[in-house]
Amino acid sequence: MTQALEATAPLAIDDATADRLFRTARTVTTFAESEVTDEQLTAVYDLIKWGPTMMNTSPLRMLVVRTPEARQRLVGHMPENNQERVSKAPVTLVLAYDTDFHERLDVLIPHMPGAREMFAGDAEMRAGAARTSALLQAGYLLVGLRAAGLAVGPMNGDYAGIDAEFFAENGWKGFLVVNVSAADGADTTRPRAPRLSFDDAARVV
Amino acid sequence: MTQALEATAPLAIDDATADRLFRTARTVTTFAESEVTDEQLTAVYDLIKWGPTMMNTSPLRMLVVRTPEARQRLVGHMPENNQERVSKAPVTLVLAYDTDFHERLDVLIPHMPGAREMFAGDAEMRAGAARTSALLQAGYLLVGLRAAGLAVGPMNGDYAGIDAEFFAENGWKGFLVVNVSAADGADTTRPRAPRLSFDDAARVV
Repeated sequence: MTQALEATAPLAIDDATADRLFRTARTVTTFAESEVTDEQLTAVYDLIKWGPTMMNTSPLRMLVVRTPEARQRLVGHMPENNQERVSKAPVTLVLAYDTDFHERLDVLIPHMPGAREMFAGDAEMRAGAARTSALLQAGYLLVGLRAAGLAVGPMNGDYAGIDAEFFAENGWKGFLVVNVSAADGADTTRPRAPRLSFDDAARVV
Repeated sequence: MTQALEATAPLAIDDATADRLFRTARTVTTFAESEVTDEQLTAVYDLIKWGPTMMNTSPLRMLVVRTPEARQRLVGHMPENNQERVSKAPVTLVLAYDTDFHERLDVLIPHMPGAREMFAGDAEMRAGAARTSALLQAGYLLVGLRAAGLAVGPMNGDYAGIDAEFFAENGWKGFLVVNVSAADGADTTRPRAPRLSFDDAARVV
């Protein structure tokens, strides 16, 4: 174990963790049979909730799709090539942003008493801000699920249909569907695709 | 050290790493004096580039703002309350999405020869897809910077101005500005704000 726990500078986390979170983790399309528990999902949420969002607005919400009945309702709003995956995953998360996130800012931004009112009057601005920060949080969440020994399979669904099906009453807007499974036993059928290099993706000025 | 390297189930990463990436990490507003090197930024990029994006489109790009001249150009497009931070940070990243990401799909999606053409005809769809996946990647990047022992201070700038100043020729669109510093020596002036609980943010069906 000692070797696996050494960090390779300039990273400060050990190599096994870097592999688990990013380097060897894959987007999975087949799943382990073991259950993914609410205890695991709560631990992941309690980890990633600390990640930064605009003014701490924390607009990410998630629908945990677990029962056969709920799963069937979701499958009806997935493109055909993703339906079987959603049918077979132990748990599927619908990630959403809360367009009424300002109603929680008394809790989230106690140091700025007027925060709720800043957002209350402009629903369009609020939706844009919520989507942006919730997508950052979705990035944290995908990493956090892997940090709990889970594998993820993110994909897109028909969000208009999903919102009408599940979120008609609470103002949530779906933006990503994520199959979740124990990593040990999950797999993908595709060889790993290349990535751009730092020199391709960055400019230093 | 042994104790710090134990994972607290159901997380699979050790407590010190969970603290470093999420639990004790803070959005910083004052910075360490030590340099943040391109070697560090390259290692971070080479870690997080493996995170999932739609079809592996990988649209995140970044401008590494390092010289006093470039820094002054950026400061002119920041809101007044963020100008001093950008002036003082060792390095500031402007995160952007590449609206012409389809030009790289021959490299990124070799298993789907028509991928470039799928996106070539619809610039509006392309911009939306690029923004969405780049925001996920920005979430990975903020975690990845912390994984390299760095601290982050994400904030917003005037992106129309930033795009005109820096990206007039390459089709990049800025969406987040991130001050980066060594974590040891960086700080924040604000007490940590609360977060929503799992029961507040999730529904299980």
